Amino acid sequence: MTVSVSAALLIIGDEILSGRTKDKNIGYIAEYLTAIGIDLREVRIIPDVEAEIVDTVNVLRRRYDYLFTTGGIGPTHDDITADSVAKALGVGIDIDPRAVALLQERYAAHELTEARLRMARIPAGAELIENPISRAPGFMIENVIVMAGVPSIMQVMLDQVVPKLRTGSVMVVETIEAHGVPEGIYGGGLAEIAKENPEVSIGSYPSFSSAGFRNQIVIRGKDPVAVATAREAVRALLNDLKTDQNPL
Amino acid sequence: MTVSVSAALLIIGDEILSGRTKDKNIGYIAEYLTAIGIDLREVRIIPDVEAEIVDTVNVLRRRYDYLFTTGGIGPTHDDITADSVAKALGVGIDIDPRAVALLQERYAAHELTEARLRMARIPAGAELIENPISRAPGFMIENVIVMAGVPSIMQVMLDQVVPKLRTGSVMVVETIEAHGVPEGIYGGGLAEIAKENPEVSIGSYPSFSSAGFRNQIVIRGKDPVAVATAREAVRALLNDLKTDQNPL
Repeated sequence: MTVSVSAALLIIGDEILSGRTKDKNIGYIAEYLTAIGIDLREVRIIPDVEAEIVDTVNVLRRRYDYLFTTGGIGPTHDDITADSVAKALGVGIDIDPRAVALLQERYAAHELTEARLRMARIPAGAELIENPISRAPGFMIENVIVMAGVPSIMQVMLDQVVPKLRTGSVMVVETIEAHGVPEGIYGGGLAEIAKENPEVSIGSYPSFSSAGFRNQIVIRGKDPVAVATAREAVRALLNDLKTDQNPL
Repeated sequence: MTVSVSAALLIIGDEILSGRTKDKNIGYIAEYLTAIGIDLREVRIIPDVEAEIVDTVNVLRRRYDYLFTTGGIGPTHDDITADSVAKALGVGIDIDPRAVALLQERYAAHELTEARLRMARIPAGAELIENPISRAPGFMIENVIVMAGVPSIMQVMLDQVVPKLRTGSVMVVETIEAHGVPEGIYGGGLAEIAKENPEVSIGSYPSFSSAGFRNQIVIRGKDPVAVATAREAVRALLNDLKTDQNPL
């Protein structure tokens, strides 16, 4: 029996939408969650606008087992994620003494400005996620996991929180190189195999570089036997086909 | 008077959500659209599932002036974007003679397999977007622009389609280096400036590398005078503040 645990990722930040900052978190989190048996099913990137954060948090936390967010938990006025999450969940938010204690490991009393204390605003009932790099914590409340946007800090927060999460069966993945057989030639047979093997998902992925096109067929599923069956069918298909000159 | 034209981007592909493929299109498209005066307001990444594509296309095309999609227009069974977009818009879809003519520039008659002819399936009423690299076209229908997922092909399609789009006022962006003044020190003053300058958006962006933290303040707006006013206020604020040892 396979178990499925689903998740969504919400990236909060004008700077990603303007192209000023290039996201480095999506690929990292996608790969990480896949490896531990949490299926990332949707990603959204939205601006630093409270109403949009509140609405999106509510849609995604209800639709998936977990919602991860990145961004918007620093000390400046545009860091509104914690307050928005509290509003979405209908809970209070205030400066949390546990978070203040963590900040005090880094800042002397006179350095704890009002701005820095924003980083200690934590929704009521949340569990803190420690941040060994710069101390200001993330948090988890219900099924919502709120992390920093700076990749190195997000990554240590993810390490901290993941042991607390339920995980499902790990996806079994088989990648088969098409070795010159074009998509347009194996496409028909691959569709048949996909139809005959509904327990797995089969994708065909062209990539293009200075060396030309390369196609890979990827079979994914939680039942190793079903994945192996589909893999053998794809290998047999490719062996039967001759290559031609058009690699797409 | 400033004119605003908004857009969303929908990335379609299981391979991005699993982490197998790292997205290279979001940052490129975000920067490109910003530079020409189209405001990217939301990005979503969803799997190759028809119902999800149909629903998401309908939400986003109604909410924004333009919806760009990438992925899912190749020749294999998992390429279901064109059919899903037709369904979302309630129009028919069939093999389009104009698209077949483009494919014939690349494929001999006997090479035009059923799978390759999938790439000529175009919703009724769509305008084709040419693809000088591998010929199979993208298309634009109403305000929905459907492009390939392979970055080099997506990029040439974007070049082809953009001259046909309405654009708004280009965002004026000023980036100010905090030069060692930490966010937690300038945060209070910056919040005041943000409140006094509602026509611009002001963000504070820490980044972290082996060289340590670096903070940048970014002011964005469509009115150059308003941006310049806020910029001078931020410069004055930073000059007034002394640096300390805690750069966050």
